[in-house]
Amino acid sequence: MKSTLLTTLVAVFTIAAALAGDALPSWNDTTPKKAIVAFVERVTKEGSPDFVPVPERIATFDNDGTLWCEQPMYVQLRFALDRVKTLAPQHPEWKRKQPFKKLLTTPKEENVAVTEHELMEIIMATHAGMSTAEFERIVKDWIATARHPRFHRPYTECVYQPMLELLAYLRANGFKTFIVSGGGIEFMRPWTEKVYGVPPEDVIGSSGKTRYKMQNDKPVLMRLPELDFIDDGAGKPIGINSHIGRRPIGAFGNSDGDRQMLEWTQAGNGARLMMLVHHDDPAREYAYGAESRIGTFSNSLMTEAKTNSWTIVSMKEDWNMIFPAPK
Amino acid sequence: MKSTLLTTLVAVFTIAAALAGDALPSWNDTTPKKAIVAFVERVTKEGSPDFVPVPERIATFDNDGTLWCEQPMYVQLRFALDRVKTLAPQHPEWKRKQPFKKLLTTPKEENVAVTEHELMEIIMATHAGMSTAEFERIVKDWIATARHPRFHRPYTECVYQPMLELLAYLRANGFKTFIVSGGGIEFMRPWTEKVYGVPPEDVIGSSGKTRYKMQNDKPVLMRLPELDFIDDGAGKPIGINSHIGRRPIGAFGNSDGDRQMLEWTQAGNGARLMMLVHHDDPAREYAYGAESRIGTFSNSLMTEAKTNSWTIVSMKEDWNMIFPAPK
Repeated sequence: MKSTLLTTLVAVFTIAAALAGDALPSWNDTTPKKAIVAFVERVTKEGSPDFVPVPERIATFDNDGTLWCEQPMYVQLRFALDRVKTLAPQHPEWKRKQPFKKLLTTPKEENVAVTEHELMEIIMATHAGMSTAEFERIVKDWIATARHPRFHRPYTECVYQPMLELLAYLRANGFKTFIVSGGGIEFMRPWTEKVYGVPPEDVIGSSGKTRYKMQNDKPVLMRLPELDFIDDGAGKPIGINSHIGRRPIGAFGNSDGDRQMLEWTQAGNGARLMMLVHHDDPAREYAYGAESRIGTFSNSLMTEAKTNSWTIVSMKEDWNMIFPAPK
Repeated sequence: MKSTLLTTLVAVFTIAAALAGDALPSWNDTTPKKAIVAFVERVTKEGSPDFVPVPERIATFDNDGTLWCEQPMYVQLRFALDRVKTLAPQHPEWKRKQPFKKLLTTPKEENVAVTEHELMEIIMATHAGMSTAEFERIVKDWIATARHPRFHRPYTECVYQPMLELLAYLRANGFKTFIVSGGGIEFMRPWTEKVYGVPPEDVIGSSGKTRYKMQNDKPVLMRLPELDFIDDGAGKPIGINSHIGRRPIGAFGNSDGDRQMLEWTQAGNGARLMMLVHHDDPAREYAYGAESRIGTFSNSLMTEAKTNSWTIVSMKEDWNMIFPAPK
């Protein structure tokens, strides 16, 4: 009993210390940081009209471009292209079949133009036809070794240090933090707990259909080449409703695909925080917005953000650090 | 600080007392209770080969017939039939249209035979065409006043006291407890936190499609008359994979619809607990099994349970109390 008590006391003091100190050191002392701290203080102060009970402190985060780098291409697309190369010896027909032929014969395949239909073919060829357990192992193996072409570090270290601090700060204040991403749910789950502190059950994403079947007397879930749900745009509130069943009080994104998630969050009663990361830092990361095909941040989204008092984070102005210190 | 510390100390002592005492007083000292306690001790004992880290302590529970009474008809069907009556004045055409006509003109409408197609029509007419927020309010209002025809108490008090104790006992031992039910996800979420201690985000169920739209400048999710997912049978492992993304180490059901959930649970490595509640107590609740249309417990399920060493709970022999004390 005594040691339990001591442990508890230490925990109590540690939490108190964390709350007292600066939990967001990578954020400059500009508007976004002030908005975050003010919001958290409002909803956690007992007796305040804006107080929110712990179970209702739900925050949702987009992943690509909000928690980790999505340039020069979505990490999951890089994964799919690598899988095409890896699987090519087992698919001699790909030498003559598009879009595989052009991917396999062009040295810099990221510049190969593919139609939306061809992209879906690539995803299905690389993401389906195996069990969920096999896919998980493939993702784990790939993510452990793949490196970002510009930053020369694992993709899981091309995550934004200020957002890691924000996730931890919210959780220390009783929030449950969910990922709500257009990316594949089973592409994220193998590593989000370690990297973001977000367990698999708090990850929402796009998904394919699966089928339950017996394989050598053991049940497996086979991944089928059929789309089940696209967790992007208007799909985000739908996915939030389906997986969480509560409306978030904080929502964090970076592109047009997050618009409805922020609208849905704002439409609830009480204090709310809606935030968009703007990529305007070509020196330390990338600069892109309305003209970008990846992570489009359109002028109409900027207008809506201003009209609705959503907070815009300038990576250049508001963050004093982009990625965590190298390991 | 002082009051926080005091609160913490009280909490520590309360938890210690709960662990030391008998957390399962409504369970007789028979095989199922021994199996539960032995399993929990195995997976929580640090250093033991069967130790399971807290984040992986996932337990899944069927709802109808496992956590609450499903006789003489599924509670959600009772809800749908009541909704038909309530909505009838707004639907004069129902006087001439089946299956509504026969439901509205027969005094004991539970004995009206409806085809599967007609049942779906009833569900769609009563569960779709409104926003998720409106549906939530309708469910809350109904569940607050509806009474079980035999036990004359709210359905939320026709829950099994031994299972409430089991849920709390598992959570006190670091488990996360999920509901995985063939019932409608949005029919359960409004009350599961209060009744079972299971928050909305830990409830998995069958669902219809929704559509995001603007209504008077506010976004709403409209419930469409279109099925999205049936969380029953082979759907249960699929729903578990989609919502949780981890394999349970304990699974609790009562009927053929839970078979694949238990198979899926058992197929993982390490200690596992699979349990089926058998309704064999006509005096205190109901007796039904292979011949029942509701909550069928077929002979082949019984054979599979015995072959795989799944634990069968006899309500008559293993539970000394069925429902909680009246409020």
